[in-house]
Amino acid sequence: MPSVADSFLGVATPSLLVDRAVVEANCVRMREKAVRSGVSFRPHVKTHKTLEVARMQGGGELGPITVSTLAEAEWFADGGFEDITYAVPIDPQKLRRAATLMRRVRHLNLLLDHPEALAAVEAFHRATGVRFEVFLKVDCGYHRAGVDPDAPASIDLARRMATSPDIEFRGFLTHAGHSYNVRTADEIRALAVQESAAVTRLRDHLGLANAAALIRSVGSTPTASLVESFSDCEEVRPGNYVFYDAFQAAVGACTLEDVGASVLTSVIGVYPQQRKIMLDAGALALSKDLGAEHPGGSPGYGIVCDLDLTPLPFRLVSVSQEHGQAVALEPFDVTGIEIGSRLRIIPNHSCLTAALFEHYVVIENGEVIALWRPVRGW
Amino acid sequence: MPSVADSFLGVATPSLLVDRAVVEANCVRMREKAVRSGVSFRPHVKTHKTLEVARMQGGGELGPITVSTLAEAEWFADGGFEDITYAVPIDPQKLRRAATLMRRVRHLNLLLDHPEALAAVEAFHRATGVRFEVFLKVDCGYHRAGVDPDAPASIDLARRMATSPDIEFRGFLTHAGHSYNVRTADEIRALAVQESAAVTRLRDHLGLANAAALIRSVGSTPTASLVESFSDCEEVRPGNYVFYDAFQAAVGACTLEDVGASVLTSVIGVYPQQRKIMLDAGALALSKDLGAEHPGGSPGYGIVCDLDLTPLPFRLVSVSQEHGQAVALEPFDVTGIEIGSRLRIIPNHSCLTAALFEHYVVIENGEVIALWRPVRGW
Repeated sequence: MPSVADSFLGVATPSLLVDRAVVEANCVRMREKAVRSGVSFRPHVKTHKTLEVARMQGGGELGPITVSTLAEAEWFADGGFEDITYAVPIDPQKLRRAATLMRRVRHLNLLLDHPEALAAVEAFHRATGVRFEVFLKVDCGYHRAGVDPDAPASIDLARRMATSPDIEFRGFLTHAGHSYNVRTADEIRALAVQESAAVTRLRDHLGLANAAALIRSVGSTPTASLVESFSDCEEVRPGNYVFYDAFQAAVGACTLEDVGASVLTSVIGVYPQQRKIMLDAGALALSKDLGAEHPGGSPGYGIVCDLDLTPLPFRLVSVSQEHGQAVALEPFDVTGIEIGSRLRIIPNHSCLTAALFEHYVVIENGEVIALWRPVRGW
Repeated sequence: MPSVADSFLGVATPSLLVDRAVVEANCVRMREKAVRSGVSFRPHVKTHKTLEVARMQGGGELGPITVSTLAEAEWFADGGFEDITYAVPIDPQKLRRAATLMRRVRHLNLLLDHPEALAAVEAFHRATGVRFEVFLKVDCGYHRAGVDPDAPASIDLARRMATSPDIEFRGFLTHAGHSYNVRTADEIRALAVQESAAVTRLRDHLGLANAAALIRSVGSTPTASLVESFSDCEEVRPGNYVFYDAFQAAVGACTLEDVGASVLTSVIGVYPQQRKIMLDAGALALSKDLGAEHPGGSPGYGIVCDLDLTPLPFRLVSVSQEHGQAVALEPFDVTGIEIGSRLRIIPNHSCLTAALFEHYVVIENGEVIALWRPVRGW
């Protein structure tokens, strides 16, 4: 078997390497947890944006998926996926495009959290005859989007949705994005309970006869990774877990060995007096996401590793457009590092990093086996 | 004439809008300063990465350019540009690809700052017969890449380059990237002097008979924008000035009216209790560059404006992948903002923002006149 170093000789830098076996293991583990829990599994595809990984998420099937843009929805519909939730509050100006897509798939579920958006979707039905399936976005404490599950206005809006002849009301969708801001597994598990509790409370406030037919959809990668099983919901939607990243490892949602995406980079400068090396992976290869605060101090814009993904004693202190500056931690001496040698970087936030690449270089057992192309844009 | 709002009705959000007239004015102003100063003008194209703007930078000609990736070099060579400086320290593993490109253009200048990189370029010549034109990268105080202009080792390296039969030594190249870290026009002008002084000192340390034939290449957008004219150099290489951005306006390199690129976005949520609106421009439409610290407090991830680019009283406090959260400053009330209405965001760092888009929507006098496609990848 060729060594890892040999196998990467022909790969241009910077490149995004995706380890197929690692990604598949992540996909299998999460999907099995959902199956074991008896809940529907509608993984998010925004982290990888590829048909190949979406099929892995579905256990080889073209299963239900969650997307973050209409461009993704269209791309995955082209790839044969037929049950899609567009999990960003709908912009009324995007309804026409969504309607065009809806004719091609079995389900295109939209999301909203405001009476004006509901009015727009209803008016669209009356004007065009296109009747959308719609979820109400619920805020479970993240405070990004979504309605307060206990506010009278939210209950009014939910009731309007449940009784509107102009939409097909599907249920309640929430995302514990605040699980990215806590630091212990116990805190994250507490947020998993919050997620389900929020959608359950709003559902129960309504007191509907058909409550059991409504979906409570939850999911974030930290919460989904750290619970033993899913409960008090009908559907889960994690996404980042396919690749994971330095951030997820820092919060305990995975180990560094579970991270399936890394950036291959070349050393283009060595500056012993500054204890520094220059990498050809900058902000356009890594993003400027600083990730989590780490207990041992931040690694900077990603974790600098050797070709076997063993972390090296560097802090990636700065990224400009095409330069990454990594400073060695004492007592490591950079003098022995050669110009042109190669390293790998575990990204802080794999969603933002992966989106920067035209294709992913897929590896398995140290060999390049494929190129996968992600969809781009909106 | 249609109103700005009308003209943007058919444009999907988020989109990058490029105002052609503004960009052209920026291009003309900078180029004329170079011509007036009697120096060569080799603008950087990494901010826009398009053939269209590169031609504007050259005053309608396919003039000398600076690039940040080999993918850019190849793209612009395909577009007819024949004199290209690749201004990132060369990775020896990229020499073969550079050699292939070199056969297609008149000049492909490389950059290095380390004896090992020089040895690699020399060995490549001896092995293949391909003799590169090479600049020595000089550190004028930014401390990213480049050699200390006064260190004996730097003088040795420069002398080796000047006398090597295996390269064509072109001269000294520096970039005052630290002009992005100071806050007053006077400080920036002082760095412009440092830029020229650094390359001049290293040149003069060599005491070469042919010193006058060597190029001193300088340039950063803040320094180039704030000096009256260029002096003590043969060549200038600013790049960001074509679009400018919120950062450049904050340091005084331009006004907000000079910014030629903005992100068109839709309001997808209104949360009066949080004094907040949600935009469909997140980290994948803006980047996570926080830009400069502003005297009046940071605007966050970009300056939220109306469709006429008048700043609105918001702070864009957070961006996730496809969400941007803008909080209103007291006493502004968000209740009157409609879901589906449109805004524009002046990016903090137009280089990173522009690179996120598949194409730019080019506008002039409130009308969409073209789509321009930037090159991507490495």
